[in-house]
Amino acid sequence: MIRAGLVGVTGYTGMELARILASHPEIRLTAATSRQDAGKRLDSIYPFLLGLPGADVVLSEPEAADLAARCDVVFLAVPHGVAMEIGAELFDAGVNVVDLSADFRLRNADVYEAWYKPHTRKEYLAKAVYGLPELYADELRGARLIANPGCYPTASILGLYAALKNGIINTDGIVIDAKSGTTGAGRKAVVSSLYCEVADTFRPYGIGGKHRHTPEIEQELSAAAGTPVTVSFNPHLLPISRGILATIYTKLGAPLTQSDIQALYEDFWKDQPWIRVLPAGRLPETRNVRGTMFCDIAVTVDTRTGRLIVTSAIDNLCRGASGQAVANANLMSGLPVDCGLNFGPLVP
Amino acid sequence: MIRAGLVGVTGYTGMELARILASHPEIRLTAATSRQDAGKRLDSIYPFLLGLPGADVVLSEPEAADLAARCDVVFLAVPHGVAMEIGAELFDAGVNVVDLSADFRLRNADVYEAWYKPHTRKEYLAKAVYGLPELYADELRGARLIANPGCYPTASILGLYAALKNGIINTDGIVIDAKSGTTGAGRKAVVSSLYCEVADTFRPYGIGGKHRHTPEIEQELSAAAGTPVTVSFNPHLLPISRGILATIYTKLGAPLTQSDIQALYEDFWKDQPWIRVLPAGRLPETRNVRGTMFCDIAVTVDTRTGRLIVTSAIDNLCRGASGQAVANANLMSGLPVDCGLNFGPLVP
Amino acid sequence: MIRAGLVGVTGYTGMELARILASHPEIRLTAATSRQDAGKRLDSIYPFLLGLPGADVVLSEPEAADLAARCDVVFLAVPHGVAMEIGAELFDAGVNVVDLSADFRLRNADVYEAWYKPHTRKEYLAKAVYGLPELYADELRGARLIANPGCYPTASILGLYAALKNGIINTDGIVIDAKSGTTGAGRKAVVSSLYCEVADTFRPYGIGGKHRHTPEIEQELSAAAGTPVTVSFNPHLLPISRGILATIYTKLGAPLTQSDIQALYEDFWKDQPWIRVLPAGRLPETRNVRGTMFCDIAVTVDTRTGRLIVTSAIDNLCRGASGQAVANANLMSGLPVDCGLNFGPLVP
Amino acid sequence: MIRAGLVGVTGYTGMELARILASHPEIRLTAATSRQDAGKRLDSIYPFLLGLPGADVVLSEPEAADLAARCDVVFLAVPHGVAMEIGAELFDAGVNVVDLSADFRLRNADVYEAWYKPHTRKEYLAKAVYGLPELYADELRGARLIANPGCYPTASILGLYAALKNGIINTDGIVIDAKSGTTGAGRKAVVSSLYCEVADTFRPYGIGGKHRHTPEIEQELSAAAGTPVTVSFNPHLLPISRGILATIYTKLGAPLTQSDIQALYEDFWKDQPWIRVLPAGRLPETRNVRGTMFCDIAVTVDTRTGRLIVTSAIDNLCRGASGQAVANANLMSGLPVDCGLNFGPLVP
Repeated sequence: MIRAGLVGVTGYTGMELARILASHPEIRLTAATSRQDAGKRLDSIYPFLLGLPGADVVLSEPEAADLAARCDVVFLAVPHGVAMEIGAELFDAGVNVVDLSADFRLRNADVYEAWYKPHTRKEYLAKAVYGLPELYADELRGARLIANPGCYPTASILGLYAALKNGIINTDGIVIDAKSGTTGAGRKAVVSSLYCEVADTFRPYGIGGKHRHTPEIEQELSAAAGTPVTVSFNPHLLPISRGILATIYTKLGAPLTQSDIQALYEDFWKDQPWIRVLPAGRLPETRNVRGTMFCDIAVTVDTRTGRLIVTSAIDNLCRGASGQAVANANLMSGLPVDCGLNFGPLVP
Repeated sequence: MIRAGLVGVTGYTGMELARILASHPEIRLTAATSRQDAGKRLDSIYPFLLGLPGADVVLSEPEAADLAARCDVVFLAVPHGVAMEIGAELFDAGVNVVDLSADFRLRNADVYEAWYKPHTRKEYLAKAVYGLPELYADELRGARLIANPGCYPTASILGLYAALKNGIINTDGIVIDAKSGTTGAGRKAVVSSLYCEVADTFRPYGIGGKHRHTPEIEQELSAAAGTPVTVSFNPHLLPISRGILATIYTKLGAPLTQSDIQALYEDFWKDQPWIRVLPAGRLPETRNVRGTMFCDIAVTVDTRTGRLIVTSAIDNLCRGASGQAVANANLMSGLPVDCGLNFGPLVP
Repeated sequence: MIRAGLVGVTGYTGMELARILASHPEIRLTAATSRQDAGKRLDSIYPFLLGLPGADVVLSEPEAADLAARCDVVFLAVPHGVAMEIGAELFDAGVNVVDLSADFRLRNADVYEAWYKPHTRKEYLAKAVYGLPELYADELRGARLIANPGCYPTASILGLYAALKNGIINTDGIVIDAKSGTTGAGRKAVVSSLYCEVADTFRPYGIGGKHRHTPEIEQELSAAAGTPVTVSFNPHLLPISRGILATIYTKLGAPLTQSDIQALYEDFWKDQPWIRVLPAGRLPETRNVRGTMFCDIAVTVDTRTGRLIVTSAIDNLCRGASGQAVANANLMSGLPVDCGLNFGPLVP
Repeated sequence: MIRAGLVGVTGYTGMELARILASHPEIRLTAATSRQDAGKRLDSIYPFLLGLPGADVVLSEPEAADLAARCDVVFLAVPHGVAMEIGAELFDAGVNVVDLSADFRLRNADVYEAWYKPHTRKEYLAKAVYGLPELYADELRGARLIANPGCYPTASILGLYAALKNGIINTDGIVIDAKSGTTGAGRKAVVSSLYCEVADTFRPYGIGGKHRHTPEIEQELSAAAGTPVTVSFNPHLLPISRGILATIYTKLGAPLTQSDIQALYEDFWKDQPWIRVLPAGRLPETRNVRGTMFCDIAVTVDTRTGRLIVTSAIDNLCRGASGQAVANANLMSGLPVDCGLNFGPLVP
């Protein structure tokens, strides 16, 4: 049994990691940290875990040495800036690390610093592997430090990857109109995330190239296209708990038909069971992937305007964060990528 | 007191008309029709109206002669195809008509027939005025047949109008990513509109230029631009009851700054109290216009990609349908456009 | 124009007061306080108010002398304990006061202290009138200090009042199973009120006689019955923003039929337009009173068990707090009780 | 591998059975019927199942002979009245039957006929076992016809069972105030179940002893108590998809303390892993059991009124219907009761 630690258990990604590990056959939660709740049992803060594996873990302070002694792999579910410090310490202590923050996602430290803050552990960037299993499975199997992708990037990159890799769309003029459930806003106590501020309403935020997931999306799309790609990424907040749906607008670069592109996408992803290219005429919806690792993708040609419109849906919390982190832990632990992750969607 | 009739009371636009007229100081609901509920009192199907003006109207069969005898103005809240027939009869009987369907919105009958079905009352198209008060107030004051705009077109046209009228954006490449509350799907008993099929999920539909509001949007935007405008219009269904938010992507046609465009929009709409151009840095959200006639608009320049992104929000049911219909009835009845319509938003 | 002040504008009751006063024809918001947001315009914290009356009020620190100089009536939307202090100061400064906290609701200071905390302004309890307009309109017209009722007590007392006043039910064994929307939990930034902690779930709290509204309910029911009444009051949290529905279980004290009690309730409330006794066979629901002053009440005899079950619904924020506060301000200002309060429900 | 058939796949219980069986290690869906969708693949009506086991089952007409040839066990997810007919045919054809309707739940045919309709297969009542595994595991292991309990009865009976079996509460005066998610209203296309009729509202229905689950609850509670028990059962509709929470009011029959009853409940249920008696001071909430077989129970003594108040929560669709049906199929197939059913809750 692989022993897992979890730094930062009180946020939604921490909660989701605890949930997923409670039914994992090979990885067991053995340590979880929380400054504010140290000393409490895990099921006292998450009563839904009562009676499940891991429920009796007693929360501790986040100390690298302590975690290194008790864990084979550690998940970092703490804010960027914090993660790079403890991540480097744990790495040096010989523990495998899956970082759910942005700290090791951007290969170019300058880009990180332009969008985030000064990076104090740049020397670890080269050690980190970007944790999108469909794209980097081989590298991830040998990794000791994995930068778990952001939620929006996961949906956006998986949606566009086949098109850019095959050069069928223009690399400029891409617009990503993304909508996320409210777990994406985190579990911090802030007025803007209160039920009565989110329910029965809908709002954009960070419109116009302001969201920090932009450079991460561009990094991976540029790698796919083999040329720099700039996108206009625009997020919105949905009154749902889980789910991202990205509607992605591109200009077709070649005179391909709906069925050409349908065939191309189906063929491209045919060996990846978590990517479900929907049958022609179907569109994704967030509930169809709720609580799962699936990324549902549909391709639609808008013949009136010469566009390929890609819609893709994931569960932002499972596929877009904690489930993907467990997939990465599986890979770095020598387990099958889908070990403990083959749950179906909870619908309705 | 102006006597109003309502053809088709059991849908959400009919329900909303009944709600609004219950507090209107000059227009009183005197007749309402429903084939399925004829003979019942209005408050027996809408118990929320109990004790309010109009609650005691007894529903009748939709007969033009009967309505003409009892009404000065009639609202048509029935499906397209049905509306053109009874609308023409009522018009001929001397009654003022506000049609909430699509039947008289498209000035070109060929366009109507390409997107909808054969038009059997083409001779009335020239008599109809498109009922967007900010654009056509003068014509509406003298109109006897008003084509009440669609909900998506209202949000889209108002959002783009100032930019196109002033020629600051390209007329091609416009993408409208629109999200609507579920009242927009109507009050028909269909599985896809059930609570458990809509709650806690989010889905696109009609992606890729399939939605029938496309030609209506293009008609009015082309008129604003003075040249044909083609848009890629893409709707989505929100798990909220009321509200549309449109995120509109355009290419800037001139090197204008954020503050230039902010100033242009504020100036353009300064005499229209229902258009709220938000202060720089603010973005609209659907709840801020809930139950009102407001259209909240924000303009954002994405300097990385040379785009002007407009976000606009309305209440699809009030501003996007029944409230706008009452504004139009006000105008054709010689009342101030905002008579009985100056309610503030219900938040939260 | 009557000048109103609002102490504590950042909570939901403060927000709702600002919303209601924005359309009030005789009372205008002239001062609003917030320690955290002093110096800001009201519409900068509540963008939905943009362009509406009162939107330009600049928030200030809560100073009694300042408020007394600028206001004829002041609403206290601050926590209990805080309210009694500033309430007494304002009263002494000659301002009319409507207190939305619990500080002046319980006539017996010992009861207050048993359920809340030490009362430091006991001498004002005798000056305060309990602000349920249907019960105390005459006293409220002459009042200078009004204790605005709690939300649960409003729904519970109005539901049971006619039965207890007429002696048709037992005074013991009453169970009130109450369900409230989440605005009732306040607008404080706490994890338990986050969207993702409230949406798509349902939970009881304070089960078993722990909720502080219990003595307030018992005070008024005892007055109605003319004998001490003890109730088992049990609240639950609903995933809706507004609305309380109370299901009240009583033992019939006399062999009355459904139609007897229906007639008794209709007759008892026939002069109170905000009390809607529903026709036999109908049951209340929260949306039917959303955003209004209505209290919808249904009476049902359970013949199998000899019970009278009363269901009553209000909007906890409007009727159960801020709207009722405005009704009380109307009364103490010599205005009709319903001035500025006759809005219909927003459905759906 | 055990072959399972599903009669009536288009309702929510049918959908949930398909979902659960998609991850069951020993039972595979081999046949599913739907009159309206015969000929379609299962994943064409339930796209969330795409790629999962059972997704390729082609829906057929409901024919007993056909099902008997292809199945070892058949689940009936059709309305009462319909179920008794095909259930009897399948039973006679040698197939094991789990009936999710009410047709075989009431041992006394007269009671059935008083609450439902004439029973045309009374001779099968004695063959049926009531499928509450915690109460009847031994009988269920040998059963060939299982009457799967109703959702409200499951929550109510499990909540009260330990108290009645131990004689610590009065058998009269019990009130069950129950709240159910909207999947409980079924998947039929009716206006009252539309999103915009259910969201952001809350309503009672069937108040006063009218709901058909009443006799089922009384049957099992009377068996537990050893004497007839009459309850006042009152349901409400929650704006959530899944979950029932029952708040149950009883009179203590003995001077027991909170800790006495806590100990009694914990001891009573200590060998039943799906019953989670919550630690003292905790209360259940529906999300904590979402998608699971758990029944979370809390006991609270209201010392002011001498009551024991029990709160219990289940997932109405999983534990209250389809999951329990699979547990019963497990038992009658010789599998462990929890085979394929040990999923944790999806929170949030």
